[in-house]
Amino acid sequence: MQTKPIVLLTDFGWSSYVGAMKGVILSHCPHAQIIDLTHDVAPQNVREGAWFLLVNYLYFPPGSIFLAVVDPGVGTRRKALAIKTKDYYFLGPDNGLLSPAAARAGIVDTVELTVPPEASLTFHGRDVFAPAAAKLAAGLPFRELGKPVVPEVNFAFYLNGREGEVVTIDRFGNAITNIPPLPDRRKYAVSLARGGKSYFRSELPFCPAYALAPEGVLFLITGSSRTLEISVKNGSAASRLGVEVADRVAIV
Amino acid sequence: MQTKPIVLLTDFGWSSYVGAMKGVILSHCPHAQIIDLTHDVAPQNVREGAWFLLVNYLYFPPGSIFLAVVDPGVGTRRKALAIKTKDYYFLGPDNGLLSPAAARAGIVDTVELTVPPEASLTFHGRDVFAPAAAKLAAGLPFRELGKPVVPEVNFAFYLNGREGEVVTIDRFGNAITNIPPLPDRRKYAVSLARGGKSYFRSELPFCPAYALAPEGVLFLITGSSRTLEISVKNGSAASRLGVEVADRVAIV
Amino acid sequence: MQTKPIVLLTDFGWSSYVGAMKGVILSHCPHAQIIDLTHDVAPQNVREGAWFLLVNYLYFPPGSIFLAVVDPGVGTRRKALAIKTKDYYFLGPDNGLLSPAAARAGIVDTVELTVPPEASLTFHGRDVFAPAAAKLAAGLPFRELGKPVVPEVNFAFYLNGREGEVVTIDRFGNAITNIPPLPDRRKYAVSLARGGKSYFRSELPFCPAYALAPEGVLFLITGSSRTLEISVKNGSAASRLGVEVADRVAIV
Repeated sequence: MQTKPIVLLTDFGWSSYVGAMKGVILSHCPHAQIIDLTHDVAPQNVREGAWFLLVNYLYFPPGSIFLAVVDPGVGTRRKALAIKTKDYYFLGPDNGLLSPAAARAGIVDTVELTVPPEASLTFHGRDVFAPAAAKLAAGLPFRELGKPVVPEVNFAFYLNGREGEVVTIDRFGNAITNIPPLPDRRKYAVSLARGGKSYFRSELPFCPAYALAPEGVLFLITGSSRTLEISVKNGSAASRLGVEVADRVAIV
Repeated sequence: MQTKPIVLLTDFGWSSYVGAMKGVILSHCPHAQIIDLTHDVAPQNVREGAWFLLVNYLYFPPGSIFLAVVDPGVGTRRKALAIKTKDYYFLGPDNGLLSPAAARAGIVDTVELTVPPEASLTFHGRDVFAPAAAKLAAGLPFRELGKPVVPEVNFAFYLNGREGEVVTIDRFGNAITNIPPLPDRRKYAVSLARGGKSYFRSELPFCPAYALAPEGVLFLITGSSRTLEISVKNGSAASRLGVEVADRVAIV
Repeated sequence: MQTKPIVLLTDFGWSSYVGAMKGVILSHCPHAQIIDLTHDVAPQNVREGAWFLLVNYLYFPPGSIFLAVVDPGVGTRRKALAIKTKDYYFLGPDNGLLSPAAARAGIVDTVELTVPPEASLTFHGRDVFAPAAAKLAAGLPFRELGKPVVPEVNFAFYLNGREGEVVTIDRFGNAITNIPPLPDRRKYAVSLARGGKSYFRSELPFCPAYALAPEGVLFLITGSSRTLEISVKNGSAASRLGVEVADRVAIV
């Protein structure tokens, strides 16, 4: 009998750390359906991980259990959380990683996971979160995972304005922002800044599809997260602009 | 009840784009068996993706559904295809990606996938191909995926001669060609060219196994696709030769 | 009916070589549960692969079948092995890759896999090990995989002293050793050497958790394998020290 999917998101790359978590899951729940959302979150970049979770959770079937580990604070007093929302479960550290997705999904209940005494101080993904996710998939009632708690760290991505940030850069060199497109706009005056200093300011055309853009020209496009991306056809906008994750973006 | 495997091939790297496609598949077909063929196709390199599909599809069980996305033309009028062959299904853009494998597998029927009105113009892997593959796995009759069509873009790899190309370079630095080995040949006169200009011409020994080659010497070997590879033991032939995918190779 | 997991470990990266192995497994055992332990073993680094297997196998459920391929000797007379231990199976080349894990797991029986006549000389992962693992998962008795044999290559990691080696470097730049921590030690005098020459010697503080370390300072920590790691908070100890896998480490 197949269980609800356990969906993994980490900053571990495709290392054996991921494999160890899968082994632990199968040891607790032999029929678990384990799916990788991504492990390519930049090391320790909680905010990038939170973005991937936020824009992708809805593509998974109701009941899915998201096990997210971007956890620079492992071994400190930061809490280990399990959040139950209307349709999903989210497990991960209390550092904001889960908060944008869980808030949008509609939080119903939150517990602090019990940390087994034999857990390491360096790898709660394997020793705390994986066993909890597996037990949940195997049928353990949510409240038996720990005791009720209020998360300490919350943040939200600002999603409705003309100012935002570069939330990730993809393999094609697209600089992906959290700014939604404006209707019927053919050009955007875009400004990029880092550390309070503007380093790029220009008017960029809008293209509906990558292939429709002229060769070699920076342009804006509505990306697959339904937010604005800065792109170059057959090239890397990110390396051309020198843009980095967390740079500020403004439509001026 | 387990379904036929859905086998993914993309140029997305191991990003959340792949994870989103898996979520969509499970949403439409909760018991889908999802297998990654590879996501390390060089960005937008349709020809490399077509090669991986061609030389690997036969290792999968009959009934397998290949979902292939290397799709620089997404959002244009290029069609979204599903091809039924004697033993397999191939879904992907009409840009040649599917054509060498599908032709060899024996095409029985081809439809143009219906594009849902809410599909993005940037990510048909998630919005068009993944739902179609999942519905097929869940039992939808092939013809209900769309209307019959004749593919527009076809290409074949030239596989029976002495001239060919570098189809991919693997992690070990082997430059893999599409030229089949000649029987009982101990040496090959090899020439490499790019943009019509020859940049390498030499006689190379043939070795049956990597470990049998002398240290530090370029040699030819019959690779795992049963075509010629240029290799160096414990080194990278590709970086030593400066060879790139799509360079022309001739046995002279 | 789901079978015992087949757990893959290779040095193939996330290339189509891995996908081909999965296709072969499904062709022989349609309901196989295939799990990736890791494919990021450095190319041809048998010792690093052996370490990953050693420190992770115990996280998998009893009955798991480990299919490990780091195989620079493919195509030579090196044997293809299947080892049965008290709770697990290990399949891979006879080059030491399996030996530390299998020895610790308690070897019960070993056979030399029969090599099918049509197997390539370059890819036994696909042509020899994958079919054998799949048949075992599908219920073939162990002894029908081949004939009894004594492995030729064995090595062990030295795990109980004050001298050891860098066994791997992770994505966060932690240099992971095989030296177990000493109890109640607050500082360690550490020396690093390569090719018999010492290139680093210093006293390093011990921290129980990454986040508790002071910024920018090299420190030691008990890592997730319960051995000592050299780390820098929010930085790469490996690039700061210029340390490489196989460098010698001594606590002096």
